Amino acid sequence: MCLYMYPTLSKNKATFIRQLGVKKHRLAQAAFVLEGKKGIEALLSSDYTIKCIVGTSSFFFENKNIVATFPSTMEAFEAPKELLSRLGSLVHNYQVLAVAAIPKPTEPHLPLMGVTLALDGIQDPGNLGTIIRIADWYGIRTILCAQTTVDLYNPKVLQASMGSFLKVDLHYVDLPGYLQNLNLPIVGAMLKGKRVGDFAFPDHGILVIGNESHGIQPAIQAVVTDAVCIPRYGTANSLNAAVATAVLCDHWKAALC
Amino acid sequence: MCLYMYPTLSKNKATFIRQLGVKKHRLAQAAFVLEGKKGIEALLSSDYTIKCIVGTSSFFFENKNIVATFPSTMEAFEAPKELLSRLGSLVHNYQVLAVAAIPKPTEPHLPLMGVTLALDGIQDPGNLGTIIRIADWYGIRTILCAQTTVDLYNPKVLQASMGSFLKVDLHYVDLPGYLQNLNLPIVGAMLKGKRVGDFAFPDHGILVIGNESHGIQPAIQAVVTDAVCIPRYGTANSLNAAVATAVLCDHWKAALC
Repeated sequence: MCLYMYPTLSKNKATFIRQLGVKKHRLAQAAFVLEGKKGIEALLSSDYTIKCIVGTSSFFFENKNIVATFPSTMEAFEAPKELLSRLGSLVHNYQVLAVAAIPKPTEPHLPLMGVTLALDGIQDPGNLGTIIRIADWYGIRTILCAQTTVDLYNPKVLQASMGSFLKVDLHYVDLPGYLQNLNLPIVGAMLKGKRVGDFAFPDHGILVIGNESHGIQPAIQAVVTDAVCIPRYGTANSLNAAVATAVLCDHWKAALC
Repeated sequence: MCLYMYPTLSKNKATFIRQLGVKKHRLAQAAFVLEGKKGIEALLSSDYTIKCIVGTSSFFFENKNIVATFPSTMEAFEAPKELLSRLGSLVHNYQVLAVAAIPKPTEPHLPLMGVTLALDGIQDPGNLGTIIRIADWYGIRTILCAQTTVDLYNPKVLQASMGSFLKVDLHYVDLPGYLQNLNLPIVGAMLKGKRVGDFAFPDHGILVIGNESHGIQPAIQAVVTDAVCIPRYGTANSLNAAVATAVLCDHWKAALC
């Protein structure tokens, strides 16, 4: 007898979950979907409120250690892997997904210490997820996002962040106004900036990364106190936004050590 | 009267083009598809042989400067944008695509000078494309790929490379054997390596980047002469492979200047 027999996912609940792939439904329901075993293990030990977990019967059977950590108030449902793969957005997730509550927005914790990232309208979800992972690698706790930045709870953002979205605080703010009111150096990544190796990074400050196509908007350029660039030795027109973020964070963190 | 009236794309040719999205068809036909105006402009001024260009009538009409550079022996066809979007793999390309010949493999040009990249089984096409763009930014001319590395002519690789695949030489080789026979330092990106800031980079050498999940295979670890790592200041388990490539290339190139 299987000890982990959960009810079968209803058609209504399946529709509800599939709709959370779209931002307007995530906003309306204040909920998002996280796919994959590793992420869900991390989610279970985070402060997020999990509404339900949907898995294949074999997932529940083979992961009793994870099942043992399910909150008693949380619902769980079984679904065949064909249905699971249609509910999620990933190609390789046929095992398990969780529906969790989107927490209420909070204000950034002030004062901002060390390096803080500011993203001026990053559009590609893979880029945002990768930047969150980079922030987590470099010990950056806070990311400020212009409202035009892609939604954190987009499934591709969560996937690319590899669980790091649980460890970095991300805030959507009126970025030009917000930066203007901070009494901190605002370092913009700009092709015409000072070579990053020649720049004396401050102990505390903001690193602004622009939109993939348009760079940093004029209203934010106006509050940038220093512009830095990554020296180019070849012919490419630009670096990917996440790649540039990592190179600049690497320089900044090394300068502080 | 429109001066750029081309024949309509036949159903057979449309099927041929759609099939080039799959590697085995690309290999069988020795041809690949490149999507998007910018890439095709660069392709037209490269050494690649273009077999045909398929565009919307408005593309041909609005881009007479590009049409003027079409080789006289090259075919061009018109197709409605709905058909074009089904032939390609990109979400936003409804304008134009080119079919070009895959050049015959060549041997890397020896001796390898400066920094050369070696990719040990990069699987994600976005990562390979981004790494090619990084190589082009840092003036790295040659990338050696283990045979397990994703295909250069995968549409997502070409897209992420942003045209840089035209400027960097990429060779698929028996990587462990190939590296063993080079009389060069082989620097492996490894979590247990020396901190990159403390490493004295040689003037000429190979930077090996491992597979996204499994890192560098044992047969290549055996020929690595030096292992370097990117210092971690936070908690993420790893950096994305393309991101790590950029940070290490940035250190290496800066050390040579």
